[in-house]
Amino acid sequence: MDVQIEGGELVVPHPSEILTVTRGDLCIRDGTIVRVASEGEVPPDFSPERVDASGCAVMPGLVNAHCHAGMSLLRGYADDLPLMRWLAEEVWPAEAHLTGEHIYWGTALAVLEMLKGGICTYADMYFHVDHIARASRELGMRAVLSLGLIGEAPGAEQDLERSAELVQRWGDDPEDMIQIQLGPHAPYTCSPQYLERVARLGEQLGCGIHIHLAETRDEGQQIEHQYGKTPVEHVCDLGITSVKPFLAAHCVHVDEEDIARLADEGVGVAHCSISNQKLGSGIAPLAEMINAGVCVGFGTDGACSTGRLDIWNEMRSGSLVQKGTRHDAEILPAAQMLHSATRGAARAVGLEDAGQLVPGYRADVTVVSLESAHLTPQHDILSLLAYAAGPGDVRDVYVQGRPVVRQGQLRTVDEGEIISRAAACTEDLRQKVCENSD
Amino acid sequence: MDVQIEGGELVVPHPSEILTVTRGDLCIRDGTIVRVASEGEVPPDFSPERVDASGCAVMPGLVNAHCHAGMSLLRGYADDLPLMRWLAEEVWPAEAHLTGEHIYWGTALAVLEMLKGGICTYADMYFHVDHIARASRELGMRAVLSLGLIGEAPGAEQDLERSAELVQRWGDDPEDMIQIQLGPHAPYTCSPQYLERVARLGEQLGCGIHIHLAETRDEGQQIEHQYGKTPVEHVCDLGITSVKPFLAAHCVHVDEEDIARLADEGVGVAHCSISNQKLGSGIAPLAEMINAGVCVGFGTDGACSTGRLDIWNEMRSGSLVQKGTRHDAEILPAAQMLHSATRGAARAVGLEDAGQLVPGYRADVTVVSLESAHLTPQHDILSLLAYAAGPGDVRDVYVQGRPVVRQGQLRTVDEGEIISRAAACTEDLRQKVCENSD
Repeated sequence: MDVQIEGGELVVPHPSEILTVTRGDLCIRDGTIVRVASEGEVPPDFSPERVDASGCAVMPGLVNAHCHAGMSLLRGYADDLPLMRWLAEEVWPAEAHLTGEHIYWGTALAVLEMLKGGICTYADMYFHVDHIARASRELGMRAVLSLGLIGEAPGAEQDLERSAELVQRWGDDPEDMIQIQLGPHAPYTCSPQYLERVARLGEQLGCGIHIHLAETRDEGQQIEHQYGKTPVEHVCDLGITSVKPFLAAHCVHVDEEDIARLADEGVGVAHCSISNQKLGSGIAPLAEMINAGVCVGFGTDGACSTGRLDIWNEMRSGSLVQKGTRHDAEILPAAQMLHSATRGAARAVGLEDAGQLVPGYRADVTVVSLESAHLTPQHDILSLLAYAAGPGDVRDVYVQGRPVVRQGQLRTVDEGEIISRAAACTEDLRQKVCENSD
Repeated sequence: MDVQIEGGELVVPHPSEILTVTRGDLCIRDGTIVRVASEGEVPPDFSPERVDASGCAVMPGLVNAHCHAGMSLLRGYADDLPLMRWLAEEVWPAEAHLTGEHIYWGTALAVLEMLKGGICTYADMYFHVDHIARASRELGMRAVLSLGLIGEAPGAEQDLERSAELVQRWGDDPEDMIQIQLGPHAPYTCSPQYLERVARLGEQLGCGIHIHLAETRDEGQQIEHQYGKTPVEHVCDLGITSVKPFLAAHCVHVDEEDIARLADEGVGVAHCSISNQKLGSGIAPLAEMINAGVCVGFGTDGACSTGRLDIWNEMRSGSLVQKGTRHDAEILPAAQMLHSATRGAARAVGLEDAGQLVPGYRADVTVVSLESAHLTPQHDILSLLAYAAGPGDVRDVYVQGRPVVRQGQLRTVDEGEIISRAAACTEDLRQKVCENSD
């Protein structure tokens, strides 16, 4: 399938400015970018569908580097509580009642929200992963999925087998629309022995690892107490970061040596600015991580701890809180943030050939309409994208060259059905939680 | 004119929970709320236009407590720079070329954005105020306007006279759609003598004061050096805060005594979370101010320092950064933030009878559609409004009982004309700046 997106403001890499904007056409064949303005060649038999993108920015699709999509059924369920109380008293008791069907529709709801907001790929850690994969595939989103592994839980052994089965079942997609990683939950819920077993399995299966790391001060104190190390040191010293891609969510409580280690080991970090603030976990040293060369992307975490699966706002919040807390308006400028939200995040989740508009890269593309009051005037399109655009400005989304969103509407599955089925699942879940608490 | 907004989820005051949600009808006559669910009475001859609000939240209109609307022509013009460089090297040279026509269309652009985002009232400080008032009136927005007064500028005397004329010209609107305040820019640009003259004029004319206060550390050091006081002490000791309403924007660098003073003197504070972060000014002690009983609302500041005139995001950012920097997820919960964004801000700008859905109050009302993926499911509507809703979810906006936005579209002025005229003014401004720098 050939597509030519014409006359848009193309957001492309630039050697010194990180990103720049050039007006031109973007040509796609069979899921791959073949030409960007004057770069690259279209094949002789190129016969594209032509899409007018004048008055639009055409940018690499956003990537959500850390999510629990199925948790969208718990959006707003228990806000304004600290992480451990929120988990232990509210979230875990509710999650105990989640069925595969709940998770299918909860994921579909999240994927609908993400696609309409310009996100082409997400990395997820949850359970009932077959249902998550199916919902992602049916809606048309690229997904890097993992089954959450709690090393201390009774089913921990079985879950390793289940993870291996998931890799067998979903791992051979030539388009990489679904990829499977291993998902050890965190160093405080998995023993060193278990983490080492996960690493060996990852090497054996050739798949990456997705973990929560250094999210709270309590976690840091607990790991320090148990092992005499920071969470980052602990995980790196176990050797499991040699499994690639290695994706670590949060990394809030990391010191200078941890940051150097994350950079040296090639760990991808999913920075979850809003979740970390909302749960009172803290403010990660984002500027230091980026300056040290750590590969950083943005993640929303679950809708339950962040409100909205909106990478635009994650990017903005991530930059703003650094500027504000350091009294430094110049750090983390617009182009840097857009780069992390696209190319940085793609690399962090293990997609080396995605996240930028360059010939030969995957055609994951977001088209943003600039024709609204809040994106007028257009002194600097990168600034507008970083500081003023939002999910509602997304017009079209291409994933692997396929138009999944057009004129702001999902083309693959009926939106109304997803919303009503997700609401019905929530009602069912609520009843089960009530019955159980009686 | 009678209006009945039917079957919505009404956001209403609650004695212990601050706000709560109750399903019912909202009845409006001639710009005033007459009945809210079962509270209040409709007049015997009530013959309303009926508006279905099922599937919607119906809330008090948002208030933008600090703006420079005309600066929307400079949106994205000079991002990622610190306040004083940004002002002196970029903003002021550009502003020197702004004409009344530029400011008319720049304000119209900002008012369009704000109304579509659910904001019914804004407080502004800028120049060419007649043009600002005209644009606000024509689009249908409530405006609390002030001419910025730079005490040290050559035109400082004339500007006091101009301010008095503005009060004469616009100040007798029985609906208070336009109100005029005096706008001394800041204690570092106005001498004590000038501030005292402003205060006397305010008392004489019976109008309020709008000032920038304690925005940066540099300001604090300068005022300390000159007067041996904090900016808040300095201004309070001059006695000018006795003029009511007294609206102070920013209040970032305030200590415990300053906060007590702001509460005692009944100063309204416009907290500008995003602008303060983006310009590297710092993080205001929002939680302490609210806990001390200071009347706080949210302000966007100009589009040039904030990107987007979005009170939803100001509210969210204001709360999140406090939770994150203090490691406290429980402070500033959803209901508190919504209260500050509506009732708090209305009182801060001097509208005692606005900002809540209560019989007898002004009918400034925002109707938010809840029928989208990112507002599903609906465990807690206040949480959804605080953490997940945004400008794109606003369906209808009533200002003084008049439907100014319906189905997300402005009804008073052609949106396309505003955007194209604002873009043309920007081009004209850009040429003037270029010619001058040659």
